[in-house]
Amino acid sequence: MSDTASEPVSSAVRELVDANHILFDQGVVDGFGHVSVRHPSRPDRFLLSRSMAPGLVTERDVLVFDLDGAPVEPGGPAVYLERFIHSEIYRKRPDAAAVVHSHSPAVVPFSAVTGTKLRPIFHMCGFLGAGTPVFEIRDFAGSESDLLISDGRLGAALAASLDQGPAVLMRGHGSTVVGSSLHQAVFRAVYTEVGARLQTEAMRLGPVTYLTEGESAATTKTNNTQIDRAWNLWLKAARTRSMAT
Amino acid sequence: MSDTASEPVSSAVRELVDANHILFDQGVVDGFGHVSVRHPSRPDRFLLSRSMAPGLVTERDVLVFDLDGAPVEPGGPAVYLERFIHSEIYRKRPDAAAVVHSHSPAVVPFSAVTGTKLRPIFHMCGFLGAGTPVFEIRDFAGSESDLLISDGRLGAALAASLDQGPAVLMRGHGSTVVGSSLHQAVFRAVYTEVGARLQTEAMRLGPVTYLTEGESAATTKTNNTQIDRAWNLWLKAARTRSMAT
Amino acid sequence: MSDTASEPVSSAVRELVDANHILFDQGVVDGFGHVSVRHPSRPDRFLLSRSMAPGLVTERDVLVFDLDGAPVEPGGPAVYLERFIHSEIYRKRPDAAAVVHSHSPAVVPFSAVTGTKLRPIFHMCGFLGAGTPVFEIRDFAGSESDLLISDGRLGAALAASLDQGPAVLMRGHGSTVVGSSLHQAVFRAVYTEVGARLQTEAMRLGPVTYLTEGESAATTKTNNTQIDRAWNLWLKAARTRSMAT
Amino acid sequence: MSDTASEPVSSAVRELVDANHILFDQGVVDGFGHVSVRHPSRPDRFLLSRSMAPGLVTERDVLVFDLDGAPVEPGGPAVYLERFIHSEIYRKRPDAAAVVHSHSPAVVPFSAVTGTKLRPIFHMCGFLGAGTPVFEIRDFAGSESDLLISDGRLGAALAASLDQGPAVLMRGHGSTVVGSSLHQAVFRAVYTEVGARLQTEAMRLGPVTYLTEGESAATTKTNNTQIDRAWNLWLKAARTRSMAT
Repeated sequence: MSDTASEPVSSAVRELVDANHILFDQGVVDGFGHVSVRHPSRPDRFLLSRSMAPGLVTERDVLVFDLDGAPVEPGGPAVYLERFIHSEIYRKRPDAAAVVHSHSPAVVPFSAVTGTKLRPIFHMCGFLGAGTPVFEIRDFAGSESDLLISDGRLGAALAASLDQGPAVLMRGHGSTVVGSSLHQAVFRAVYTEVGARLQTEAMRLGPVTYLTEGESAATTKTNNTQIDRAWNLWLKAARTRSMAT
Repeated sequence: MSDTASEPVSSAVRELVDANHILFDQGVVDGFGHVSVRHPSRPDRFLLSRSMAPGLVTERDVLVFDLDGAPVEPGGPAVYLERFIHSEIYRKRPDAAAVVHSHSPAVVPFSAVTGTKLRPIFHMCGFLGAGTPVFEIRDFAGSESDLLISDGRLGAALAASLDQGPAVLMRGHGSTVVGSSLHQAVFRAVYTEVGARLQTEAMRLGPVTYLTEGESAATTKTNNTQIDRAWNLWLKAARTRSMAT
Repeated sequence: MSDTASEPVSSAVRELVDANHILFDQGVVDGFGHVSVRHPSRPDRFLLSRSMAPGLVTERDVLVFDLDGAPVEPGGPAVYLERFIHSEIYRKRPDAAAVVHSHSPAVVPFSAVTGTKLRPIFHMCGFLGAGTPVFEIRDFAGSESDLLISDGRLGAALAASLDQGPAVLMRGHGSTVVGSSLHQAVFRAVYTEVGARLQTEAMRLGPVTYLTEGESAATTKTNNTQIDRAWNLWLKAARTRSMAT
Repeated sequence: MSDTASEPVSSAVRELVDANHILFDQGVVDGFGHVSVRHPSRPDRFLLSRSMAPGLVTERDVLVFDLDGAPVEPGGPAVYLERFIHSEIYRKRPDAAAVVHSHSPAVVPFSAVTGTKLRPIFHMCGFLGAGTPVFEIRDFAGSESDLLISDGRLGAALAASLDQGPAVLMRGHGSTVVGSSLHQAVFRAVYTEVGARLQTEAMRLGPVTYLTEGESAATTKTNNTQIDRAWNLWLKAARTRSMAT
């Protein structure tokens, strides 16, 4: 990857590989799903693996894309069909430094039901705030699509649904979260999954008391100072069990 | 296995061993369940392990069967009681290149209840289409059987219930899925289990929006191009944790 | 263990150690629970570990007990408080060759609720038959006991509740299963747990069709010929992950 | 850690490191949560790790704190924001020798719902007694707090809610348990989580019969003599899988 030879870029590539392995090790992604990070010196570009399972990604699999979702170097390997999730969010959201898209198992059910919103049930997912929007792709691609964000128009529609929030659910598909840093995006992806599981269990026990908007804001502010405590653990765990070579 | 010495056959045997280990590693089979692949040059034959736990199968355990479910080489080791699941599906379905039978844990409950159908809740199991039929063995073997597909007549009845679909549930027993390739059959077996779990969770949260038939068709078409992304990951995971020697 | 030096006994001891490790590895026991086997040549005696976590048991931890639950060799290490579960079942049931007592997690809820019986939902737990009795210790020890089967009188009451069946639940405590061989008892302990989990999930989806008594009998007869397919897998898995030294 | 050089203290430090690793290995803590033990010779002090994931704690990360929650040695590393949970419980409860705070996943739902109390469903969590109180931080910090016990006043309020009991739930946050020894506190933390999971499952099956107060007292008394059976297993498991270096 000639474009990634400078030191800040190599460092971003290495961290992106770590993020891929963490998300796999924590059960957020399986063979599918992907994570990207904005280019450290070119805000109109972002780094994303070629099309492959995140758990197997290595540094040499990372490519540079522009905000149209096109690889900067032509003639490269196959790329993710849904790279437009990333490109359009980076275009719309200057604050977004990283994006995670997944089909994490506790979250998908919330994308597919009516009448229940994914909300912050405990302080670790306070960032979910007043509740997570659900993107219904039928409104943009009709009722016979393959549900994928397979072009810039659909990416822009998804980004509009995400708006200024941290996360958006995608009906019958999964979710996408953003962060102001790669570590924050990974943290949010893991705790969106954890929170979804807790909410599902709590709803069987009785009426749930969710965080207030004030509590959401305050817990988010505090948690933002604690993200690396989790990252360091997850990184060690991912490296211990890594299958990528 | 003299009959498996030619190169295409040895290659099929090796992949079948991988499929056995993947299905065990992904939790689709435990000590029971089995996977077969049609013989690469003799469509009236198929490859299937002798009777043993899939997680322990090696190349030397693979046998060749004919479409009556009989081992081609006489005097061999004990064979699966339910090999007729495979033989009758290969007989009825020229398009079937591989068959997986399992008791995967999220699917069994759908086989045993009335009023709820296993349906595609997200794009990864779009292949489930308009819903999965349930084979009630009582209609063919009475209400005192051991529930097993233990002869050709029951195998044919199961194949008829499967019809042209990708999967059939078996009441109080498990399920059987078919694929136009071994990789596709394994992919479907894993995502039938994943989808069943997601549907079970979603049903507690509220009314579920399932994929339309158009979405099912479109997601299946797209996913068929992505199967090896999962296969490559699962194979690496299975090899890392393999117990077969 | 001088009393276990003869070859049939050493062999029984080795298999009992394997059974301990399998039950731990399969999640049937945690730090608590125990498994015993009747003495191969002295039907009035049985083999059981000293008081310790099953996952850590070695051959030198196995002791011989009589049918009063007393260790045959005096002055030995601390023994399980609930050895009377084993002694009284061996006394009452000449057909019982092995006994497993556990707090396996999917089964405990069935012990503690009224109105729902643990029943065979799929062929692998056909042995559960017409449903599993629940032993209410309050009927024998009052409502301020520690719930343990801590003497012969309570052991006899539990054995009476078990009667001629394969399994009995113990309210607010766990369950006990018996087998005509050690392998069968372990098989039943694992599939009682598996079946309980499946039934719990199925009950959310709709009315459940359980196995008929005829199906229970027929599946049990067939499964009894297949037990070692599972045992061989579980043994390999337990040895791979063993922590006992 | 100069203050921890004497033999009883070094021994307490080593056990505290073990406790950290056990709680992580048993799934009670993830990147967050913490465990402390009272200083063996100075009851007005306690030992607690610096701010980091419990699974990675080593002996050199353990610090000594006073009952105001201040590190005894100034100028040290960053400390847990919620050390006041520990300091105020040690101040209020002379019987408390160890404290575990966690967000263990089956317990959080009970903290966030109204109408359902966490109660002892089986003998292993008899210590929960008549039911576990829920601390609502809004009563003390208003409805816009970050939910953390971030000063002595909130710590004292939590300790008052805990009162003389073994455990207190914290709304939208987690739980805190105490023990008369480090082993007992860890035992209770694990079985609070196990019991919460069992209760959640049982509530779907039908009306639950919980332990009476007499049964709670009797099972607690018996279990207190059996704690090391679990501790020894958990320690071996934690060491086998340890990532701390």
